[in-house]
Amino acid sequence: MTYRIFRGDESIAAIPPDSRGLAYGDGVFETMRAHRGGVHWRDAHRVRLEEGARRLRLRLPDMGKLDAGIDALAGEQPDGVLKLLVTRGAAGRGYAAPADAEPLWMLSAHALPPPMRPGGLVVRWCDLRLAIQPALAGIKHCNRLEQVLARGEWQADAFDEGLLRDTEGNAVCATAANLFVLLDGRWTTPPVDRCGVAGICRAWAIHALDALVEPLSIAQVESADAVFLCNAVRGILPVARLGERSWTPHAKLGDAMRLLADAHPAFAHLEYP
Amino acid sequence: MTYRIFRGDESIAAIPPDSRGLAYGDGVFETMRAHRGGVHWRDAHRVRLEEGARRLRLRLPDMGKLDAGIDALAGEQPDGVLKLLVTRGAAGRGYAAPADAEPLWMLSAHALPPPMRPGGLVVRWCDLRLAIQPALAGIKHCNRLEQVLARGEWQADAFDEGLLRDTEGNAVCATAANLFVLLDGRWTTPPVDRCGVAGICRAWAIHALDALVEPLSIAQVESADAVFLCNAVRGILPVARLGERSWTPHAKLGDAMRLLADAHPAFAHLEYP
Repeated sequence: MTYRIFRGDESIAAIPPDSRGLAYGDGVFETMRAHRGGVHWRDAHRVRLEEGARRLRLRLPDMGKLDAGIDALAGEQPDGVLKLLVTRGAAGRGYAAPADAEPLWMLSAHALPPPMRPGGLVVRWCDLRLAIQPALAGIKHCNRLEQVLARGEWQADAFDEGLLRDTEGNAVCATAANLFVLLDGRWTTPPVDRCGVAGICRAWAIHALDALVEPLSIAQVESADAVFLCNAVRGILPVARLGERSWTPHAKLGDAMRLLADAHPAFAHLEYP
Repeated sequence: MTYRIFRGDESIAAIPPDSRGLAYGDGVFETMRAHRGGVHWRDAHRVRLEEGARRLRLRLPDMGKLDAGIDALAGEQPDGVLKLLVTRGAAGRGYAAPADAEPLWMLSAHALPPPMRPGGLVVRWCDLRLAIQPALAGIKHCNRLEQVLARGEWQADAFDEGLLRDTEGNAVCATAANLFVLLDGRWTTPPVDRCGVAGICRAWAIHALDALVEPLSIAQVESADAVFLCNAVRGILPVARLGERSWTPHAKLGDAMRLLADAHPAFAHLEYP
């Protein structure tokens, strides 16, 4: 893994100990898929980053510098995961944001995650419920204890992902992916204006699959004709099993994966019958 | 400011870039009041730390090592603020907690905050509402974007603190303090089992003042006979004004402050008529 740390325009050796990212999770991040030295959905990641910064009133680094950093890293790790973390910088103690702190930001390159379990994901409902917080919903901020707790509910290999409900019982997403279900021939995904993250691959799929954005109950998910999870790193991941319910391959899910592979060749290798 | 960083038992020079504290706010903290080289409520801070670690399934450092670090710092900064941050350590990307990562922890010493505005605090209602999240309520975890956003609603000097309501409209706390109101001669503070932090000074005050723990409406706060905020660093802070409402000194608030000063001499200097 490669890590590059910056304060404003300047490259620095280490995270300052008074980083607000460390103290409060006061920042946003993007997890991007590098493929053959390019970055899929680069513009969409940038738009979400800017939206997150706007919502948190967070100062962003110079975009030219940031783009150059991403280019350099994608050149060194042409096929992998690139992560960008932008925090409010460093400043003493207390919640009040310093007016003049330079943003503290970091770029890192990581290996691709292991390939999907053959046949599709085995998932579970998590016990943890996502809190309703419109002020933070949708953006990819660094307050991720809900996801950490939910992911901690099972041991590796037992399940591939966990599905999350909000405190009102609606299905929202997985710990690190968005959720799409096929109902009456139409793909549907839950809104993310009260909790959840506005995923980059989710936005692509809503447009490409003409999906509905509507609240989903547990019963709707379990009775769906097909279910997939998606994120910008792994693309579309078919769900094969959720508790007692299992799904066999569905033509419309194959169509969706082919559409994605045509648009974003990193995902051309994903197998589906 | 002094910062000391540790991984397990080992002193290290800098925060590792793959710190889960930085990535996800995956940790807990304590903010302690040092006074004449001792630490007020030291046991209570430790109990809350352990409770936070239990709830987040977070491994704590060796307690002897931790105590020695606090002693050393309190010796160097006999009157000030000591902060302890314990995070889940460092590990690649992804929400799954590493089974074997050494805890990454940090001790720091800070100057005391400036003294209270003479006559009592001027406070406001924040627009931001705290989300209902029982899984994180009560503990002093590092997912503090709600507090950062709430504190960002006003400029320094305009107000001393902001009062927070939850998404259901109940009054809960301030951005960095708990809330007590005097109703029918009895101090009352809201529960913190759905949101908010179980403050160290709050626990002292519930016991010392025989306070009720009950939900509070905005109307109850605004119609109270006296209001104070409290935390472990600043003790009891009388509220003088909240919007149109103002409070003159109340004998029972003076009594509470004297009780606190007798038990914890760091707070003996707080002025109140």
